[in-house]
Amino acid sequence: MPNQTAAMLVIGDEILSGRTRDSNMHHLAMALTEHGLALTEARVVADDHDSIVAGVNALRAKYDHVFTSGGIGPTHDDITADAIAAAFGVAITRRADAMALLGAHYAARGMEFNEARQRMARIPDTATLIDNPVSIAPGFTVGNVHVMAGVPRIFESMLAGVLSGIAHGKPLLSRTLRLQRGEGEIATPFGAFAAEYPDLQMGSYPFNNDGIYGTNLVIRGTDAARLDAALAALEERLSA
Amino acid sequence: MPNQTAAMLVIGDEILSGRTRDSNMHHLAMALTEHGLALTEARVVADDHDSIVAGVNALRAKYDHVFTSGGIGPTHDDITADAIAAAFGVAITRRADAMALLGAHYAARGMEFNEARQRMARIPDTATLIDNPVSIAPGFTVGNVHVMAGVPRIFESMLAGVLSGIAHGKPLLSRTLRLQRGEGEIATPFGAFAAEYPDLQMGSYPFNNDGIYGTNLVIRGTDAARLDAALAALEERLSA
Repeated sequence: MPNQTAAMLVIGDEILSGRTRDSNMHHLAMALTEHGLALTEARVVADDHDSIVAGVNALRAKYDHVFTSGGIGPTHDDITADAIAAAFGVAITRRADAMALLGAHYAARGMEFNEARQRMARIPDTATLIDNPVSIAPGFTVGNVHVMAGVPRIFESMLAGVLSGIAHGKPLLSRTLRLQRGEGEIATPFGAFAAEYPDLQMGSYPFNNDGIYGTNLVIRGTDAARLDAALAALEERLSA
Repeated sequence: MPNQTAAMLVIGDEILSGRTRDSNMHHLAMALTEHGLALTEARVVADDHDSIVAGVNALRAKYDHVFTSGGIGPTHDDITADAIAAAFGVAITRRADAMALLGAHYAARGMEFNEARQRMARIPDTATLIDNPVSIAPGFTVGNVHVMAGVPRIFESMLAGVLSGIAHGKPLLSRTLRLQRGEGEIATPFGAFAAEYPDLQMGSYPFNNDGIYGTNLVIRGTDAARLDAALAALEERLSA
């Protein structure tokens, strides 16, 4: 069975304005690669209802899983949960399970469970909750869409929970041949070599660090022995 | 005149696999905000012809400008130029202007202007070249799409050239009120306040650094005096 595909939808004005540098996409990319899911597309949209609805509907139709980050807090600009409900055409209310979780959390701390905090209990009808071990307010999964917080520590802890419930695929492995030669010098033989291995992905990434320049040739696939053999063959080919 | 809109298309397997952490999106976001263009959407796609064509066609129809990064080098996985030509339905050849630039560059260095390096002269017919002060191989603009390299130093230098040719909009400015109070405590008054300023964007960003937690309330707009007034009013409202 081929690995399942995945997409990400990052939600937040602050990413698009440059105020905040997103780190969740890179974390998700690494986590999915290790888990054996293929991250195939990512999008970043503003805190805008129609943009979120359009983004999530486009991605959930194309990929096995969609992971979102951002917009599930207590403030007026947190509109993700309502947009996801609209995308699926389901109702959204302050759900009893989420109200109970949050209510107990604030009661234990002697803090008021006010209107704004109750907003974080707004969960689409058919969703299951995603555990938030950091700050209680849950994420949720509806259909194939996993809705998580934007704060990196919370995103990462929610993601770990979600992935534990998704069957492992074959992790995507890689081998790198680092050469102190320019891309333009090895591109033709490397291209011919890649064509002989249609089952492997091969990419070329130039580097230039402190005046030392060269190229990293990266071979990706799921079979370690096959990667080792390809790496050895590539090394021999390029030294010939 | 409202500010022009912009989108980004990041092209590269290495971003989606987590091997490389993209930095061009954050750089572009900051540069466009300063230049007065509104970055409204970003997408990341693999080095895959159909994905690039679909991405660029979706974005160029919706936004005033599209900025792409990645996939214009000499190796077999560099397929961006051909995909952009296909997206616009124009021919692509080794163009005389790009061949001349690159040919002179390699001749001056006594390096062979081989097949792979000539690949970097493949430019769609109707495009204009984007200067690459770092390593010569040009980017290009076709229609409203600006195609640039993925290597950050090169991307950044190409972008500076492109932006110098796009009329400045009003830079998006921001003011931040930092509070050592949780989001849930100030969300309701902040939401009511934001509703009184429909011309300004207001967002709330919780922080937690070394046990000090609180919320940054950010007000964004293009009129400095209006922002200063809103910030003062917000400060007074929340201290009341």
